Amino acid sequence: MSEREAVLFANSAFYHAFSTRDFDGMVRIWSKTQPLTCIHPGWDILYGREAVLEAWRGIMQRRPEGLHMTPRNERVIIQGDTAIVVCIEEVTAPRFLSATNIFVREGSTWCMVHHHAGPAVIDPASLEPADKPRGPIN
Amino acid sequence: MSEREAVLFANSAFYHAFSTRDFDGMVRIWSKTQPLTCIHPGWDILYGREAVLEAWRGIMQRRPEGLHMTPRNERVIIQGDTAIVVCIEEVTAPRFLSATNIFVREGSTWCMVHHHAGPAVIDPASLEPADKPRGPIN
Repeated sequence: MSEREAVLFANSAFYHAFSTRDFDGMVRIWSKTQPLTCIHPGWDILYGREAVLEAWRGIMQRRPEGLHMTPRNERVIIQGDTAIVVCIEEVTAPRFLSATNIFVREGSTWCMVHHHAGPAVIDPASLEPADKPRGPIN
Repeated sequence: MSEREAVLFANSAFYHAFSTRDFDGMVRIWSKTQPLTCIHPGWDILYGREAVLEAWRGIMQRRPEGLHMTPRNERVIIQGDTAIVVCIEEVTAPRFLSATNIFVREGSTWCMVHHHAGPAVIDPASLEPADKPRGPIN
């Protein structure tokens, strides 16, 4: 698995944990060693592991069953042991958010340290097929 | 100047360029060597230097005079040659956005590679004095 694939795997695991209400999975995705921050749509900034994970617990408990969130048009930038993923979040409806996800390498695993999502007006025609190889950003 | 101060300097320069309609300054802030991405509030994701800077040119031309944007409650995380700043953007009014700014070290300069801002409901009482030293995120 290439570094890029490993980062995309971690990014997909984040959305899978959310979509399946797997809070333990969500906990495992976030770094246990680095400072964590999170910006949910419209919220004030959350600082620190406890605040970030407690918010996810609440959101995932309140989330209606069957509400899935799928990453689309992912772009990966790896700078040393830090990886940035920018992507569209397609939420069941469909409606869209745009997101910045940041991961750090911890051993062989990429762990999330920051998530920022906000509402976005997306032209569905701009969505790439889910299996399309994604090119570099120029 | 510590690394953290250098990152905060770059972050402040970004908001200063915006607030003073200094497009050349804005151009200098963004990395010339790294892939660039930008997410403006409600917009689709912009990829690549040309798209990112053209959008800033348009925004800064349309921006009313006297509209200032000031970073508040900045938190800096440095991972090797990558730095993440999460902060509140206080816009003249006052109204607020939350932002994720990512910089990479290029020689002695920290250059922006990603900006993501979205509307946020912020309690003004949570704003720290501008000169307060900011602690680590736990």
